[in-house]
Amino acid sequence: MDSILPRAIDRDTALAARYGADTMPRVGPWNETIASMLGHRSVRGYLPTPVPEGTLESMIAAAQSAATSSNIQAWSVVHVTDPAKKAALAEIAGNQKHIEQCPLYLVWIADLARNLRIGTAAGVEMVGAPWTETFMVAVIDAALAAQNAVVAAESLGLSTVYIGAMRNDPERVASLLELPPQAFAVFGLCVGHAEPKAASEVKPRLPQDVIVHHNRYSSEGEEAKRIAYDAMMAEFSRRHELQVTTWSQRVLNRLGNMRSLNGRERIKARLNALGFPLR
Amino acid sequence: MDSILPRAIDRDTALAARYGADTMPRVGPWNETIASMLGHRSVRGYLPTPVPEGTLESMIAAAQSAATSSNIQAWSVVHVTDPAKKAALAEIAGNQKHIEQCPLYLVWIADLARNLRIGTAAGVEMVGAPWTETFMVAVIDAALAAQNAVVAAESLGLSTVYIGAMRNDPERVASLLELPPQAFAVFGLCVGHAEPKAASEVKPRLPQDVIVHHNRYSSEGEEAKRIAYDAMMAEFSRRHELQVTTWSQRVLNRLGNMRSLNGRERIKARLNALGFPLR
Repeated sequence: MDSILPRAIDRDTALAARYGADTMPRVGPWNETIASMLGHRSVRGYLPTPVPEGTLESMIAAAQSAATSSNIQAWSVVHVTDPAKKAALAEIAGNQKHIEQCPLYLVWIADLARNLRIGTAAGVEMVGAPWTETFMVAVIDAALAAQNAVVAAESLGLSTVYIGAMRNDPERVASLLELPPQAFAVFGLCVGHAEPKAASEVKPRLPQDVIVHHNRYSSEGEEAKRIAYDAMMAEFSRRHELQVTTWSQRVLNRLGNMRSLNGRERIKARLNALGFPLR
Repeated sequence: MDSILPRAIDRDTALAARYGADTMPRVGPWNETIASMLGHRSVRGYLPTPVPEGTLESMIAAAQSAATSSNIQAWSVVHVTDPAKKAALAEIAGNQKHIEQCPLYLVWIADLARNLRIGTAAGVEMVGAPWTETFMVAVIDAALAAQNAVVAAESLGLSTVYIGAMRNDPERVASLLELPPQAFAVFGLCVGHAEPKAASEVKPRLPQDVIVHHNRYSSEGEEAKRIAYDAMMAEFSRRHELQVTTWSQRVLNRLGNMRSLNGRERIKARLNALGFPLR
């Protein structure tokens, strides 16, 4: 099949799922592209069915069409099909089985190495490279590209989930994927057909007026809105995961203890070791 | 108008514009969402025409639907309408007039402050916050969200351009927008109707096989492909900017001297001052 249309989702249904019926934003223009994005949910279980031929190329064409700072295109992607490597990556990620399960696994790389090879070939010292700024540019380039790939995949009816846990051990990921210095695996991405029982509900987000500020940042009135969102998220967790937790509690669990970092508090030293001085 | 369809773009035309006729990837599935992404170009001149009512809300609904690490939603956006603030931001960005010109200007914030307020309210020390990893999570959250907003805007026939030059002076941006500590303006985004003479051609990118690696990173054969891309980009610059420059030369200009950083070599100290210890 040459052209696949995204699932048509009714605007009010999509907004109620994303924000709850009481805090729906007054959105204006709407189309199938926006509907497809609103329908996003992270999926952690995949059928073995392969993705249609040429899907990776369609996703990469979308990814490369994203903006990139001064067109330096400071990113790469490694498509991992080797079962042994997928198993090792799943282990690094704390045994996330969907990495092995999904038919298409991609590791997104903040890649300054390619640009630096141009300096080597030309005999030019790349004095702009070793800075925190330049590292950040490469990470942002990779993120913008990956998100376009996600939008493309989901518009084709496929499911995805980002794997931030590639950062649990960036040096081992670099070694497995034979990355050169100054290339860093920012995150992984599973792509495939959702296993029906893993096809989760859309997760509600904070109301728009907590996220959007006008001319100046303001947290006025935020606490009451957060408490209402906490109640909605407690309901969501009751429906899905048995253990009832508010959003605030989840944020406290994530940022209020060192365990949740899974060793990622060492990432600065590890980035240094991968060739990013982060000056 | 309730529903606006993206411009229908023929697949081969879109791919030839993005990759050149000689290095078109073998893409498979195709639809209007992918076509709209392939049609992306950064636009640096805008008509004064306002965007349709509710456009910001549609874009933010898309942005909030992007994945966010553990649902911490560590980003905010400041919608800047105040002409004095727009002028000051344009000046920080090296006099990019389109910041003042565009009807919708957004500054995307890596925002740990909101999550940290939960810790303060609960009396929990947020020991997971001061790490390079956690800063990176907030930057990635902001980037994924912004890219969904861009895809939404472009699917509605609007044009955009990211403004990385907000990072020329993050402290002054923070002061203008009254950001709290631990909130950082990652980039700006102009949105609006393209001024016809600013509506540029799609910019070609590197061939897919330079970007995509299989199981292991490899730069084999890269140089010849880069030289062919250089010739294509020299032709592109000839058509558009008079000064003919290859892609390799542009990369050397950007990373081979300190001037191109526009002071951003100081960003680490500036992030420290904004409350990010980057441990």
